[in-house]
Amino acid sequence: MSEFSLIYHYFKHATPRHANTMIGIGDDCAISLIPPNHALVSCVDTLVSGRHFVHHTPAHAIAYKSVAVNLSDLAAMGATPYAILVGLSLPKNMANDAFCRDFAQGLSDICNQFGIELIGGDTTRSAILTISVTALGFIAPKQAITRTGANVGDVICVSGNIGSASYALAAKLQGRTSPLQSALDYPKPQIKLGQTLIGYASAMIDISDGLGQDLKHILTASGVGARLNLENIPSDPNLHTLSHQQKWQHQLNGGDDYELCLTISKENLAKFNQQNPNQIFAIGEITAGNQLALFYDGNQIDFGIKGWQHF
Amino acid sequence: MSEFSLIYHYFKHATPRHANTMIGIGDDCAISLIPPNHALVSCVDTLVSGRHFVHHTPAHAIAYKSVAVNLSDLAAMGATPYAILVGLSLPKNMANDAFCRDFAQGLSDICNQFGIELIGGDTTRSAILTISVTALGFIAPKQAITRTGANVGDVICVSGNIGSASYALAAKLQGRTSPLQSALDYPKPQIKLGQTLIGYASAMIDISDGLGQDLKHILTASGVGARLNLENIPSDPNLHTLSHQQKWQHQLNGGDDYELCLTISKENLAKFNQQNPNQIFAIGEITAGNQLALFYDGNQIDFGIKGWQHF
Repeated sequence: MSEFSLIYHYFKHATPRHANTMIGIGDDCAISLIPPNHALVSCVDTLVSGRHFVHHTPAHAIAYKSVAVNLSDLAAMGATPYAILVGLSLPKNMANDAFCRDFAQGLSDICNQFGIELIGGDTTRSAILTISVTALGFIAPKQAITRTGANVGDVICVSGNIGSASYALAAKLQGRTSPLQSALDYPKPQIKLGQTLIGYASAMIDISDGLGQDLKHILTASGVGARLNLENIPSDPNLHTLSHQQKWQHQLNGGDDYELCLTISKENLAKFNQQNPNQIFAIGEITAGNQLALFYDGNQIDFGIKGWQHF
Repeated sequence: MSEFSLIYHYFKHATPRHANTMIGIGDDCAISLIPPNHALVSCVDTLVSGRHFVHHTPAHAIAYKSVAVNLSDLAAMGATPYAILVGLSLPKNMANDAFCRDFAQGLSDICNQFGIELIGGDTTRSAILTISVTALGFIAPKQAITRTGANVGDVICVSGNIGSASYALAAKLQGRTSPLQSALDYPKPQIKLGQTLIGYASAMIDISDGLGQDLKHILTASGVGARLNLENIPSDPNLHTLSHQQKWQHQLNGGDDYELCLTISKENLAKFNQQNPNQIFAIGEITAGNQLALFYDGNQIDFGIKGWQHF
């Protein structure tokens, strides 16, 4: 099967057309209009079989997640998603109707869910299934929430349960079925919440490599430290039966959560919570210095932060 | 080595800053301003070791080419390149100083050459070196040269020698050194020529998968046929000693040329050549119907068009 027929047959009509697309998939390039007074937001993330997802993960979930992790990066800026470009390296035994149909359906489902269009693609053969997705979005300049704005005294919040995907992965690697499997396979990019936080949050990141490591990116970029109160980090009830060490391992080092981690002034937090109750959850505070200090029930604890290592 | 330190250490300052970049590499996303009255142009291409380049190709050449093939797609629309995002999957034994430095230098060289910035990146481990590059550019809406505008009677032109990269690859696979090796490793995206052709060319594509197959994309998209006069296809003198069949195989089916193939009315061709002598070379004519007919010295010949197959 040629690249041409593969892309056209399965992917050309898999996703909704977006009003800002002048030329979509099928020419040398796509051509897109940016809304007036808006800037382009872009990011890339690559998923490799056996590394970012276990072998035999359904093609539908692989496609869905490869887009979701990129939309999560857009969410972490407060951006509105627009489109994706997909570089797909496919083993020959997967270039068949069943895999491609399932993969296209996964792309279709998440693109329909968020109103985004597949505007560019390249498929090639490789011994290892690899999906590289570039996501494009829009934002009004100066509204973007970066990693650099955290101030001493800001409250650190997350947008939901932390550690579920890591818990599910551990279960899967042990051959157990987990009620949290969907947290691993179908992460939910917090697009709407990210947009709602514009004007409130001082800094933001999405949690992909582990809360500890990702929060540290904010601390480094903003030149501040932090105190985390571990008992305040929300988690699924399935994690409640674990030992503290096991739970913290999933929550601080596990990764793949794709919840937002943000900093916000106490004043803005009060305003935000009044308008948007139960959307974000305070887990600590920004401090002077450059250290990440961990506390449990008021006592400082020693726990090694070592999130996902790409190498 | 973590993704974070790898990207930052080698790539963050490898490419020039672009005036349209508000936020470059290092946050969740990049944020970019599109010039007034311009649209965004985007494309993605993936290179896989052992498939798009032979093992032991220097890291510098791999990096350079992975960007060049994408810039060639921008050139084929007449666009002005702006930036790239790179998804790099790297075997563990390549995540070392020598490889990364050489790779970064290749990125740096082509980005400096065309004034483009690396605004996003993701590095991950994989058993197979895979580079997925998304290129972004700008163009004034309606100026873009697509594949759909070829008209019966238009002249078909190419921008330079065809078949050199294929000739060099064949030599390399036979263990011979080739004087055309740089055509294979360091393709020259025809950015300036693509822009110059705005207002002249009726349809355009870059030749990546072979002149025959890529011209057919124009024919299909435009709903026309073509007649090629094979004796008029320019080639490097190294190909002159080959048999016709060997030469045509390199020229029509070989691929990796990254020259432009375009259609242009006779009137526009005369005007263009007056203003820009020796830039494009007539090799045939657009015909009614949907067939690609091949002629040599006035006699129709039978030759199987079968370009690069991605699967």
